[in-house]
Amino acid sequence: MSAAIVDSNNRAIRAVRRTTRAELGHESVLERIGEMVTRLGTEAGFKKKQIAGLGVGVPAVIDIESGIAVDAPNLGWKDLEIRRFLEKITGLPTAIDNDVNVALYGEVKAGAAVGFEDALGIWTGTGVGGGLVLSGRLFHGPHVTAGEIGHTVILPGSGLGRETLEEVASRGAMIRTLRELIQSSHASIISEMVKGDFAQLKSKALARAVLAGDKLALRVVRDAARFTGIAAANFVTTLSLPCVVLGGGLPTELGAAWGDWVRESVVEHVWPDKLRSVVVVVTQLGDNAGTIGAAIVARERLAPA
Amino acid sequence: MSAAIVDSNNRAIRAVRRTTRAELGHESVLERIGEMVTRLGTEAGFKKKQIAGLGVGVPAVIDIESGIAVDAPNLGWKDLEIRRFLEKITGLPTAIDNDVNVALYGEVKAGAAVGFEDALGIWTGTGVGGGLVLSGRLFHGPHVTAGEIGHTVILPGSGLGRETLEEVASRGAMIRTLRELIQSSHASIISEMVKGDFAQLKSKALARAVLAGDKLALRVVRDAARFTGIAAANFVTTLSLPCVVLGGGLPTELGAAWGDWVRESVVEHVWPDKLRSVVVVVTQLGDNAGTIGAAIVARERLAPA
Repeated sequence: MSAAIVDSNNRAIRAVRRTTRAELGHESVLERIGEMVTRLGTEAGFKKKQIAGLGVGVPAVIDIESGIAVDAPNLGWKDLEIRRFLEKITGLPTAIDNDVNVALYGEVKAGAAVGFEDALGIWTGTGVGGGLVLSGRLFHGPHVTAGEIGHTVILPGSGLGRETLEEVASRGAMIRTLRELIQSSHASIISEMVKGDFAQLKSKALARAVLAGDKLALRVVRDAARFTGIAAANFVTTLSLPCVVLGGGLPTELGAAWGDWVRESVVEHVWPDKLRSVVVVVTQLGDNAGTIGAAIVARERLAPA
Repeated sequence: MSAAIVDSNNRAIRAVRRTTRAELGHESVLERIGEMVTRLGTEAGFKKKQIAGLGVGVPAVIDIESGIAVDAPNLGWKDLEIRRFLEKITGLPTAIDNDVNVALYGEVKAGAAVGFEDALGIWTGTGVGGGLVLSGRLFHGPHVTAGEIGHTVILPGSGLGRETLEEVASRGAMIRTLRELIQSSHASIISEMVKGDFAQLKSKALARAVLAGDKLALRVVRDAARFTGIAAANFVTTLSLPCVVLGGGLPTELGAAWGDWVRESVVEHVWPDKLRSVVVVVTQLGDNAGTIGAAIVARERLAPA
C-alpha cells in the first residue's frame, strides 16, 4: 500500500510505503496509514493547512467517484468506504485509486513512459494487476473497474485456476509451477535456496536464480513473460496502443531481461504489422512508482487550481 | 462493402450495399462504388449540391485522418488512398472508416445498443471484425487501428493458424472444422446439404442446420460462441464496459440463440462480479448496420454544422 502527501504549492514532498498486514483487519490497516501520514507531516514540520491532500493506491477495484474499495480480493475487503475513513482519521482531503493505476500513472508522468499519452500497464506480483492511460488520463471505464487485465482469460479450457493471466503468469503462479516441477524431481538451484519452504521464494530470490542461469527457473519465468506479452499484445491490437509499461516486484528485479522477453512476445502477436513499433518498457521508478503516482494523482485531483 | 449518401439537411436518405468482387482489383471495386453512388443520387432526383457527402465502410484498417486503407487482408489492399480515389470519382466529400466500426456505430446510434455510450462490437463473418465505442464516439486509438479483436490471440500454443479469435471462431473457421469432422465420418445433415462442396456453406445454410438441431453443427457453432464470449469478456473486464453488440452474417441468421450462447460465456468470464450485468445484444439493423452506420458517420463528419 502506498501513500503520499502533497504540499499546498502543488508539489509532491513526502511519500511512504508500508507492508499492508491485511490480517489485522481493515480498521487497523487504515489506522496505520493514518498514523503514518500524520507522523510524516509532523516530521516534515508541516502545519495541517500546508498539506493539500493525501494520495493512496490500494490493491482493489476502486470507485474513484465514491471513494469506495469495491473489491479487494487480497485484502478481503468488499464495498469499504476507504476514502471517508482516511479523511476522518487524517483530516486531509484524500484521493484514492487502484495501486497499479497510480503506479502506471507515475511511470507515464514521471518515469519510464514519459512522452506517451497512451499506455497499458501490467504489474506482476503476488497477482497480476493492470492499468490503462488513454489520452493522458487514467481510464477507469464506464463501470470504473477498468485495467483488470490479470483477470482476463489467456488459456481457455486449461482447467479452473489455470485460465487467467494471473493464474498462469503471476509470481504466485510461477512459484506454484516451480514447486510442482521441483517436487517431481526437476533439478533447480531453487531447491537448495528454499529448502522445501517455497513461501520463502520472493521476487529477489527468484530473479537471482533466473539471472544465475538456472534452467528451470528461466523456463518458468520466460513462459510467464510470454503469456504476459500475449495479453499485452491483445490489448495493443484492440486499442492500437503505442506503449506497454511493465512493473511489479519480479520485473523490477529482472529489469531489462523481463522487458526483452515480454517485448519479444508482444511484437510476435500484435496486428497489424505497424503495431510492432510498440514500445515495451520496464518500470523506471521501481518500488516508488505507486507512491509517486499517488502523489501526482492527489496533486491533480485535490490541489487548488 | 457498404455506402450511403446523406442530404444537405443532415438526414441519411439513401444507402446501398454490394458484393465487393475484390478479384477485379481495387480500381474496378472503387469505380463500381462510384457509379453505384452516382446512379443512386440521380435516381433519387438529387442535384449534386444537395448531397452533403458519401460514407463508406471498408473491411480494412483505415487511417481516418488520411483516408488511407492501411491494410485490407481480404481485399489484398495495402496503403491505398481510398478516400481521395472515391472523392475524385464521385465529386463528393467522403468519410471512410472500418466496416465493423461503422456497423457498430449504427447499432449504438440507431439500433440494438441505443442508450449506451460505450460498447464493444464483434462481427462474425468470413473473418471476425471488431469495433469500440467509448464515450459515445468510435475509438480509433493512437495508431488508428483499434478494434481488431479478431486478430487477438485466444488459444496460445494451439498451433499456427489456430490461435486468434478469427482463426477459431469465424464462420470460415467453423466451416473448416465442420469439413474436417464430416470428412472423418462425423454425422451431420450438412453432409447432405453441401454434397462435398463446403464453399457452398454460407451463413444461412449453417444457421438452418444449427436451428434444425444438427448436433455437430450445434457443437461447432457453440464452441465459436464460447470463444467469442471469452474474447468479449476480456475486453469488458479490462475496459469495464456495459455493452457488447454482436453482428455479422451468421449471428444475424441465428439471432437470439447466438446472443444467448455468447452472453453465457461473457458472464462466466468477466471480473469483478458487478460486470456480470453487461448487456450482450445481437444486431438489430442486421445487414443494414454498416450502411446506416456509414450514413451517420458521414453526416457527423461531413454535414455543415
